[in-house]
Amino acid sequence: MSVSSNPYAPNASDLVSNVRDFKIIESTLREGEQFANAFFDTEKKIEIAKALDEFGADYIELTSPVASEQSRKDCEAICKLGLKSKILTHIRCHMDDAKVAVETGVDGVDVVIGTSKFLRQYSHGKDMNYIAKAAVDVIEFVKSKGLEIRFSSEDSFRSDIVDLLNIYKTVDQIGVNRVGIADTVGCANPRQVYELVRSLKNVVSCDIECHFHDDTGCAIGNAYSALEAGARLIDTCVLGIGERNGIVPLGGFMARMIVSAPDYVKSKYNLKKLRDIETLVAEAVEVNLPFNNPVTGFCAFTHKAGIHAKAILANPSTYEILKPEDFGISRYIHFANRLTGWNAIKSRVEQLNLPLDDNQIKELTIKIKQMGDIRPLGIDDVDSVIKQFHADL
Amino acid sequence: MSVSSNPYAPNASDLVSNVRDFKIIESTLREGEQFANAFFDTEKKIEIAKALDEFGADYIELTSPVASEQSRKDCEAICKLGLKSKILTHIRCHMDDAKVAVETGVDGVDVVIGTSKFLRQYSHGKDMNYIAKAAVDVIEFVKSKGLEIRFSSEDSFRSDIVDLLNIYKTVDQIGVNRVGIADTVGCANPRQVYELVRSLKNVVSCDIECHFHDDTGCAIGNAYSALEAGARLIDTCVLGIGERNGIVPLGGFMARMIVSAPDYVKSKYNLKKLRDIETLVAEAVEVNLPFNNPVTGFCAFTHKAGIHAKAILANPSTYEILKPEDFGISRYIHFANRLTGWNAIKSRVEQLNLPLDDNQIKELTIKIKQMGDIRPLGIDDVDSVIKQFHADL
Repeated sequence: MSVSSNPYAPNASDLVSNVRDFKIIESTLREGEQFANAFFDTEKKIEIAKALDEFGADYIELTSPVASEQSRKDCEAICKLGLKSKILTHIRCHMDDAKVAVETGVDGVDVVIGTSKFLRQYSHGKDMNYIAKAAVDVIEFVKSKGLEIRFSSEDSFRSDIVDLLNIYKTVDQIGVNRVGIADTVGCANPRQVYELVRSLKNVVSCDIECHFHDDTGCAIGNAYSALEAGARLIDTCVLGIGERNGIVPLGGFMARMIVSAPDYVKSKYNLKKLRDIETLVAEAVEVNLPFNNPVTGFCAFTHKAGIHAKAILANPSTYEILKPEDFGISRYIHFANRLTGWNAIKSRVEQLNLPLDDNQIKELTIKIKQMGDIRPLGIDDVDSVIKQFHADL
Repeated sequence: MSVSSNPYAPNASDLVSNVRDFKIIESTLREGEQFANAFFDTEKKIEIAKALDEFGADYIELTSPVASEQSRKDCEAICKLGLKSKILTHIRCHMDDAKVAVETGVDGVDVVIGTSKFLRQYSHGKDMNYIAKAAVDVIEFVKSKGLEIRFSSEDSFRSDIVDLLNIYKTVDQIGVNRVGIADTVGCANPRQVYELVRSLKNVVSCDIECHFHDDTGCAIGNAYSALEAGARLIDTCVLGIGERNGIVPLGGFMARMIVSAPDYVKSKYNLKKLRDIETLVAEAVEVNLPFNNPVTGFCAFTHKAGIHAKAILANPSTYEILKPEDFGISRYIHFANRLTGWNAIKSRVEQLNLPLDDNQIKELTIKIKQMGDIRPLGIDDVDSVIKQFHADL
């Protein structure tokens, strides 16, 4: 049923942002399997599923059991692990697929069908009436088995808004648990997302899930805007792996959310597991952790310019919105370079336990900056300059 | 002067989005030098500056000439190259710095000072009256030399809005060319950005520049929202390199903007140079290109799942919002895996020029998916299965 029959009643989306009350559908074992380099054998899938469960993922989504015979067996094996995370599988909007899915032991089924003119013309070739009928049949079948069911459009941001709202309203009325919006090609921008979710929020009473690809670099910003507009569930993958350059990355999304809802995020998700999970998946798909990865990239908590280092040493909140200790990581003040300042050098001198006064440290800093102009400096280079300077006094 | 003295006149920000009329301030040689791994010698700086000029960067921003003696010399050397891009340098809001900056030959000077309570307390220790007075002195001095001048706050999103608007109004009235908003710690989200830029747009008549760090993964989304709200200039770095995990990446920003303003972006920026510039900078700072980098990541145009491959083969727009050819890159249909479909295999069979009909290809696809269940497949593995299947007929 729709949210309110009184058009003058308060608008639910004005009252409810879900920034402090969201859930994660972790799709590394579904969307992530569509990453170019991904080949997960049964053992690796189980290892990843257990790690995501320990992290606290609300849902774990698995590849369709009709994708291949082993995909079906792996789905059954993961359902038998007895994890706290709910297990979902992801299928086309077909009764054939649904019949296989409900026998695997999953807690719920995610159904998807393309609704854009591109996908209707070049993928499945079906019109909106056919899509609505197929959706109703599949949803009623899955519900009859006592499982959760989500209906999602595909390429939602290039679909006709009237078609979209029509079909979402139809499936909401027959009692779907969630409807999904998918930016399948990664074209959406944050304000557009806000507006679509907000419109949808006025049409359905069920939860709204969002799936954002990152082709144009807006996946995390879009996810945040969706939650602000009243969506409740966000699809993530570890390191964002998926088709093309992937979707919302679990780690980057946690970085975004801990800034906005620190208590909720820290009470619900085991953030100190993040680095291990990323390492596990990066090794499994044979990629390096991106140098600029949020939180776990090698430089995420490294401070270099003199004025940054000075302020960070006085109070880390000056130039850090994230606390590295929340993720079991430490910060690093980069002092061995020409942009360094005397506060960074002073901190190093104190670490080396050498008795120099501020004027001496300023003189020493000039020497180090001169060296840093000539070539890249190692920590040991600078340490020996400091020690020599002290010895010469 | 402010935009309009009639409070009932149309609001400029309702009329003007700059999504189709923006400029880039490319800061790889300033912000990028603050990246942990960066050490650019003179030769490398000149090589990067020339590459950015060929790309079409509107402005190139350089490290402060007071950071070190070589920084000053390099700034002078780059100013003498006669590039089409305008050259800027970036200084603290101090007359000492300004006096050095105006002698380097730059086209303009970017001035910054911390306005958040964090930075006022732990960095420079000055109050807003001091900041305003220092800003006016520096701005009038730089203008007297005939150079462009920008005034930016630092950590703008944790600054008092009244303080901010006050100082921006003051510097706008004395004729600054641009005011800057900086999300120095990477905490801002897109709707918050939209609102701050929109408020500022009603207070100043000069251009608005924005600088977004990417600690919480929203830098590109924030940049886009800022342009929608009427900002005109966005700071970028190649691969986003900068303090911590950096700022808006040039490539990802181009991906975002070409989707929204294709004619403007293609007419103004030499997108086919992007991959070479990224390679140049990645080698200079000794990092790998992130596997998931927008546009140039190895999988950005790779399609794997069967239903994706089918539709892409019929029409690339189904699952691609970016055209790889705009960036001088090709797409790749990944057919050697268990998620493959018969349309992808058919395409490969046609590439191999083998006469198989659709039923034969469907049978062949089942064999390949069975193999893909057992182990990762190489292209050569699948090709030999296809050839064997054809030979056995």
